[in-house]
Amino acid sequence: MLTVKEAQSIINSYSFFLGTEEVDIDHAFNRILAEDIYTDRDYPPFNRSAMDGFAIKSADINDKQINEFEVIEDLFAGDIAAKEMQSGQCIRIMTGAPVPSSANAVIRVEDTVNQPGTMHTKLNTIKPWQNISLKGEDINKSEMLVRKNQVINPAILGALAVAGKYKIKVHKLPAVAIVSTGNEIISIKNPVKPYQIRDSNSHTLKGFFKQYDIGNIETLLLADKKEELKSGIGKLLDKDILILSGGVSKGDADFIPEVLAFLGVKEIFHRVQIKPGNPFWFGITSAGKAVFALPGNPFSVQVAFKVFIEPYLRKCFALEPMASLYFPLLGLKNKKTKFDEYFPCRLISENNSTGLLPIDFNGSGDITASIHSDGIGLHLSDEETINEQSSIPFLLWN
Amino acid sequence: MLTVKEAQSIINSYSFFLGTEEVDIDHAFNRILAEDIYTDRDYPPFNRSAMDGFAIKSADINDKQINEFEVIEDLFAGDIAAKEMQSGQCIRIMTGAPVPSSANAVIRVEDTVNQPGTMHTKLNTIKPWQNISLKGEDINKSEMLVRKNQVINPAILGALAVAGKYKIKVHKLPAVAIVSTGNEIISIKNPVKPYQIRDSNSHTLKGFFKQYDIGNIETLLLADKKEELKSGIGKLLDKDILILSGGVSKGDADFIPEVLAFLGVKEIFHRVQIKPGNPFWFGITSAGKAVFALPGNPFSVQVAFKVFIEPYLRKCFALEPMASLYFPLLGLKNKKTKFDEYFPCRLISENNSTGLLPIDFNGSGDITASIHSDGIGLHLSDEETINEQSSIPFLLWN
Repeated sequence: MLTVKEAQSIINSYSFFLGTEEVDIDHAFNRILAEDIYTDRDYPPFNRSAMDGFAIKSADINDKQINEFEVIEDLFAGDIAAKEMQSGQCIRIMTGAPVPSSANAVIRVEDTVNQPGTMHTKLNTIKPWQNISLKGEDINKSEMLVRKNQVINPAILGALAVAGKYKIKVHKLPAVAIVSTGNEIISIKNPVKPYQIRDSNSHTLKGFFKQYDIGNIETLLLADKKEELKSGIGKLLDKDILILSGGVSKGDADFIPEVLAFLGVKEIFHRVQIKPGNPFWFGITSAGKAVFALPGNPFSVQVAFKVFIEPYLRKCFALEPMASLYFPLLGLKNKKTKFDEYFPCRLISENNSTGLLPIDFNGSGDITASIHSDGIGLHLSDEETINEQSSIPFLLWN
Repeated sequence: MLTVKEAQSIINSYSFFLGTEEVDIDHAFNRILAEDIYTDRDYPPFNRSAMDGFAIKSADINDKQINEFEVIEDLFAGDIAAKEMQSGQCIRIMTGAPVPSSANAVIRVEDTVNQPGTMHTKLNTIKPWQNISLKGEDINKSEMLVRKNQVINPAILGALAVAGKYKIKVHKLPAVAIVSTGNEIISIKNPVKPYQIRDSNSHTLKGFFKQYDIGNIETLLLADKKEELKSGIGKLLDKDILILSGGVSKGDADFIPEVLAFLGVKEIFHRVQIKPGNPFWFGITSAGKAVFALPGNPFSVQVAFKVFIEPYLRKCFALEPMASLYFPLLGLKNKKTKFDEYFPCRLISENNSTGLLPIDFNGSGDITASIHSDGIGLHLSDEETINEQSSIPFLLWN
């Protein structure tokens, strides 16, 4: 049976480039940038006053010991100095305004006394370029500002705007379909009979995909009947990502692998050393598209998304894998299996530190534990016991 | 001058209930739940087989030492047992199927040998209720399943589905407007002159609001001209949240407070002991709506959102404040001010621990540092030095 790492690596080897499209900056949030963004000018684009004050020549103070200046002009942000400043003269300047080329320092208004047309200062020395943000000190023209293959977050949106990019090349979104299978599964819009279970997995999975702005997802409920499965699933094999939940356990179960084989989906593997999340079936259509068949238990579906499907999706987008964060476990945990075990945890911050509190849960069918958790901790296969305060890897739900 | 905590507390005291609306479950992701959700049935809703195997009476094995059973029926998920099982009989059962009331244990298929109509087992004992998920063991009927005033994440979407809720009461979204002011500020769609700066702050802020599904935001660029400001801002005072950036520093700056006063917006405070993010002006319209006036520097705007505006927004939604996470600082940091200082950091996970790497930056006008960071670390006002590996509070950008 494959380890989690082996399974991830095999799945990711089937990732493919989704192509690109152009979107307006107002629709770029949370999309994946597909072009490197270069600056078209220095930033700051000019020597910018960092303070409200007076632009002067530093030598007037440092060498000529001048401390009374004639104010020849007022300069606001967005203005250009009209006059050339001579020794003994100064220009009143506001934060953000371009420092005139004849000046090389700004005295803060707090360090001056002002009368109409005149500025006195008590300063004996001032550093050249004091209180000036120098042209290009942040980034130069034609440098790379934003590297491609990142999620466009608020700061990156701002950087795109700085570069004047309002049409943005982003990765296309994959076409996704989600099929919940099982004779007992019904739509949440229908009345439920005592032996029926409402379909919750498709809603959970749609939420996970929405985190990547993938909203247009086809969903289908199918009974465990071979002909119905063949016809229903058969129509969805053109999707980039097809997810099935339910119907892969041993009993009823050979149905899904058998139906997928009939439809020309090649089985890549069927089991992984993971708990929960098994049986986890992965295959590839004749066109090279991914088919994930998950168990029907809600918590298993959530773990399978975070551990296998999300890394695959990120790989298609050329994103870095979601990094685990390490936190100390607020408790002790034993396990019996030799599998990687994921368990729900809540982040607790107190006394200047953050730790992971494991949430009690009844196993993979539990619907309440994950609601009360911030993500999943990982009990690694080769560790029998996690000791109190041991640092373990943690994946945030979002 | 107010401390950050004092300022936050004052701002939050002006929060108000936005009202509620009903959305379909397909539009509920990332919205804020506004009703407590109760279960309408036990979960599991019936004694559910946790394994593929055979439902039996445990006393047949434990007391009567029977190890050969007649198979009287096959039971799939979604089926109801048609027959009453007698001693010495068993029912073949699949994972997820309801255990018949005449049985009280399931033997795993792996522990049996089967021939048509007959099942043999090598087991000498079996615990009553072995391999059965008991009705209600996760949660009982009429218990609270999801507490209101939480962000609806994938697991909560699944729980809403379990409860059969497809119309969800959520908090209404606030009406938001963002005004960028400054003679030098131009739209990113216009050609830029050497002394002009493209408006990036409105794009950054719109990104932050999108994290809460708030997408319909009015934006406006206004020059530093009193009449233009009065007329432009005057039309936006009916918004729930109005954000201005630029024009609050001392020089050009009394414009914004003066214009807001003219428009009947009451100043609550003007400065906070924070770096960057000052001057930070907060006021309230005659109708009690919030007006935030921020400095124009990009990094200041980002910090002001995370530290003041997001907590206010969350309070309006009745959400818990965004919790800081604590991580060790991978470096040493000194500061000169007595203010709370926020600085960009990247999360680095290696050698089984996660730490914060401070990102070099040129101060509040820097557009590149935050792109390379995962969030902001906090250097608390009363600490002159943060020592290497000291644990500090950290806020993720998202």
